[in-house]
Amino acid sequence: MHCSGPLSSKAAGEVDKTAAAMGKQRVNRDVCRGGEAGSQQGSQIQLSRVMRPDDANIMGNVHGGIILKMIEEAGGIVGTRHCNTLNGDRCWVALVRVEKTEFLFPVFIGEVVHVSAEISYTSKHSLEVQVKVVAENILTGMKKLANKAALWYVPCSLQNADKILEVPPIKYADAEQEEEGRKRYEAQKIERQGTKARLEEAIPPPPNPEEAPKERHTVGFSQSSLIHLVGPSDCTIDDYVYGGVTMKLMDEVAGIVAARHCNTNIVTASVDAINFHRKIKKGCVVTVTGRLTFVSNKSMEIEVLVDAASLVDKEKGRYRAVSAFFTFISLDKDNKPLTVPPLKIEGEDEQRRSDEGKARYVQNKAKRLADKERRQ
Amino acid sequence: MHCSGPLSSKAAGEVDKTAAAMGKQRVNRDVCRGGEAGSQQGSQIQLSRVMRPDDANIMGNVHGGIILKMIEEAGGIVGTRHCNTLNGDRCWVALVRVEKTEFLFPVFIGEVVHVSAEISYTSKHSLEVQVKVVAENILTGMKKLANKAALWYVPCSLQNADKILEVPPIKYADAEQEEEGRKRYEAQKIERQGTKARLEEAIPPPPNPEEAPKERHTVGFSQSSLIHLVGPSDCTIDDYVYGGVTMKLMDEVAGIVAARHCNTNIVTASVDAINFHRKIKKGCVVTVTGRLTFVSNKSMEIEVLVDAASLVDKEKGRYRAVSAFFTFISLDKDNKPLTVPPLKIEGEDEQRRSDEGKARYVQNKAKRLADKERRQ
Amino acid sequence: MHCSGPLSSKAAGEVDKTAAAMGKQRVNRDVCRGGEAGSQQGSQIQLSRVMRPDDANIMGNVHGGIILKMIEEAGGIVGTRHCNTLNGDRCWVALVRVEKTEFLFPVFIGEVVHVSAEISYTSKHSLEVQVKVVAENILTGMKKLANKAALWYVPCSLQNADKILEVPPIKYADAEQEEEGRKRYEAQKIERQGTKARLEEAIPPPPNPEEAPKERHTVGFSQSSLIHLVGPSDCTIDDYVYGGVTMKLMDEVAGIVAARHCNTNIVTASVDAINFHRKIKKGCVVTVTGRLTFVSNKSMEIEVLVDAASLVDKEKGRYRAVSAFFTFISLDKDNKPLTVPPLKIEGEDEQRRSDEGKARYVQNKAKRLADKERRQ
Repeated sequence: MHCSGPLSSKAAGEVDKTAAAMGKQRVNRDVCRGGEAGSQQGSQIQLSRVMRPDDANIMGNVHGGIILKMIEEAGGIVGTRHCNTLNGDRCWVALVRVEKTEFLFPVFIGEVVHVSAEISYTSKHSLEVQVKVVAENILTGMKKLANKAALWYVPCSLQNADKILEVPPIKYADAEQEEEGRKRYEAQKIERQGTKARLEEAIPPPPNPEEAPKERHTVGFSQSSLIHLVGPSDCTIDDYVYGGVTMKLMDEVAGIVAARHCNTNIVTASVDAINFHRKIKKGCVVTVTGRLTFVSNKSMEIEVLVDAASLVDKEKGRYRAVSAFFTFISLDKDNKPLTVPPLKIEGEDEQRRSDEGKARYVQNKAKRLADKERRQ
Repeated sequence: MHCSGPLSSKAAGEVDKTAAAMGKQRVNRDVCRGGEAGSQQGSQIQLSRVMRPDDANIMGNVHGGIILKMIEEAGGIVGTRHCNTLNGDRCWVALVRVEKTEFLFPVFIGEVVHVSAEISYTSKHSLEVQVKVVAENILTGMKKLANKAALWYVPCSLQNADKILEVPPIKYADAEQEEEGRKRYEAQKIERQGTKARLEEAIPPPPNPEEAPKERHTVGFSQSSLIHLVGPSDCTIDDYVYGGVTMKLMDEVAGIVAARHCNTNIVTASVDAINFHRKIKKGCVVTVTGRLTFVSNKSMEIEVLVDAASLVDKEKGRYRAVSAFFTFISLDKDNKPLTVPPLKIEGEDEQRRSDEGKARYVQNKAKRLADKERRQ
Repeated sequence: MHCSGPLSSKAAGEVDKTAAAMGKQRVNRDVCRGGEAGSQQGSQIQLSRVMRPDDANIMGNVHGGIILKMIEEAGGIVGTRHCNTLNGDRCWVALVRVEKTEFLFPVFIGEVVHVSAEISYTSKHSLEVQVKVVAENILTGMKKLANKAALWYVPCSLQNADKILEVPPIKYADAEQEEEGRKRYEAQKIERQGTKARLEEAIPPPPNPEEAPKERHTVGFSQSSLIHLVGPSDCTIDDYVYGGVTMKLMDEVAGIVAARHCNTNIVTASVDAINFHRKIKKGCVVTVTGRLTFVSNKSMEIEVLVDAASLVDKEKGRYRAVSAFFTFISLDKDNKPLTVPPLKIEGEDEQRRSDEGKARYVQNKAKRLADKERRQ
């Protein structure tokens, strides 16, 4: 990587190291180092941004979807940059999977969010990016680790979006690090197989307003769906929707479902692993539907299904692009978790989904406990 | 600065330095370093973002105003963070001046823009931030230095926005560096005095369509103005408009003036020093007016005047908040500068403004030449 | 869940099941059902979205323009989907007319707005979409019918935007329903003829600040205009501006005019029928101008004129694309209507426009009264 064009001579001038220039140039040089910190090593990047009112709910809590979108943007940049370091077709990386991620601390309007991403593993046709989100209150200097995530991408040729290119290998610090990566790669591969069945899950029938209104705290009562017409700024330069844009919409619907169920301030607590089965092209309409599956004492699990359809290209029809489980919690004024009203289950399907949700809940709890013990 | 809450132990775990853990931890540690590169040292930050279609004109050239807004956001973060490192009132920094800045290379949709900012000088009540903008094509790996800027801020108390707080001093590498900063500080102070007269400049009368339409290539023909109702996302947490938001609106109007004059693809080439005389509060309407002042063979100078008025607080009346000179050039398909149609001057006022514009043009050209020779 | 406030009786009227009403009411009922069906049947759709701070004024009232934009997006999706069900050219539907629409209840930040749209009539080359807007407070479960609208679209070929395609016919529940639709179609056709004269109305001369400032409460005092450079996200995939984007800009200018006149919190009360005479292409600059025409005791009528001009295509020149009358009211802290300062009329033209405005005001009032009696 190098500076291009007529600037190169100018840039050279800036790092002129004659004794006389040292003082004057120090500032510039430092800015330069900072400026290219993310980019000198091709496999790292950092995005930062002040959180604005539109990024948050009316209590000032930044939506989980905003964080997920920033995470995915960072992953997409670092992945695309890396996959274009070889000669051959130019490509853009498509998000295929996000590992389970937890929102460790709520983020607020006015805080600066720093999202740093680094490639941590490469297989022949995919790469893993690890991302860390730090929220900084620039008034108090306090920082909190708000989120950590791992994302899997595959490089798609810009000439032919269906052609998956090869990923240049990264260098590992040692054999153990590589071996750990390979284990994560194999584990997610197996898990992805298992999710294909879920693709067939029918979209829930929306409430029929001619029937009697649904009873409060049932699944049907809070079930919600939204539709979004994909615009140019939702898309990468190859005209496919950013995975982060889809996750933001999913979080939005899940948040509405959660708020309808408990009528209090709610925030995203975690997102189960998400698999992106099929890409969504510019000009499509996406329908995002959310419904409660399981409610514990202090959390709500919401299944979110994303279907896409082209408006003009009728052959394609409607297809399931993504599905995922979001977990929300309800917070009081001091950001302490509130008890959530129990879910009224109706019928066998809802019972099955609730049982499956409970199994995930119990498993996650056990895993958190084990992680905690391991750290002590 | 430190990590807050229950996470601190976890964070500590991640930088565990036992020999056995070194391999595994490197990834995490690096992410952490990268992740906090901008924030561990309080006086630096880097913002990065992919350029979207909405950021650019129909030729794919990113608007100068988008870059100026990112530059100012970076400056605001680094300045606010620094000014809150002491005990006492919390504050937010307000932009008071941007030094003349040049757009060295056009930036395109799909490129990643990295904006890095660092505090380079502090006086008792103000601070200077130097910013560098690097645009990276992540498909080719090419990078170009797109912009360099210097901004001056003052810290305003969040309790009382009219109270200017003291700025904690920064440490300089050596006495020479400090002395250079002091010179820049004194120079801009003198220059700011000189601009107060311009504040009184009447806003140009807009074209009256009941008269005959203006002749092409006159000042009146291309003169344009927009109004914008200030919304929450335009404002800092103390409800005053970000300087960067104002600059983006100014660039938008100037771009329309330039395009109306030459009917070709135009881009921002440079912005003369801008002084922000008075702040603009949430709920105000801002009127931004642009008019051509001087046209050279290949460039157009446009004066932009920003007036603000509160909609609900009728006592305040309308006031001049900012004014500045933007220079635009016209580009062909290969991004080579085109010849610009000459400006038809009408009346004494237009002649005077054109003469003043020509003087700035000649002075800037001489300065660029001198800089070039100095570097050789 | 239930409908709140004074609307409940009106809403109840809509699902009145007397035999006589069945035909007429079916459409509304269907919209309601479809409303939530999502998109399973091609002729129906529902968009939902949480209202954000940027969607509202500083009092938290969501701008009418945001609602109008959502309404038109829903209409555009359902219309485009329907017109692409046949073989032949792919197309996008262009908005040609919106019938008079009333804002029945203010909508607030944090509420979820559900916009449901259904095709209610098709002629050979145009189609009518009926839209219903329900705002839901997801914390209390309260819902209110915020708006009902009817929009007319024509399908434009994506190969050649000037070619209007044929609209596939829809199936009607019975002959009466079809007959009602035909009547609405004929009525709007006649009305559209009448509006062509208004196209020639000169844009109001903007205030000349070199003269003495305008007196408060005159037409000239509050008159406002904005320019907007059309960007990619303002456009459909065939690169023409969404009708909803134009309506949002019109509402923005009208709101500024209203606020300048009365210096209080103002909201959109209704919009008279709008005819979209000519399309606006990507890269154009639109100039949107608003001026008061008539002020009653508690309402302000504002005429809004939209002119468009291509920046790069200088032959085309500037043309009138749309014009419409917006009515605003002023609300106190409890959302009760306030008395509006009377308008100071100057000159014959202003008097004529005020008389015409008064005639519209009286006619609308009579119509509302008649509708009310008919429902009792």
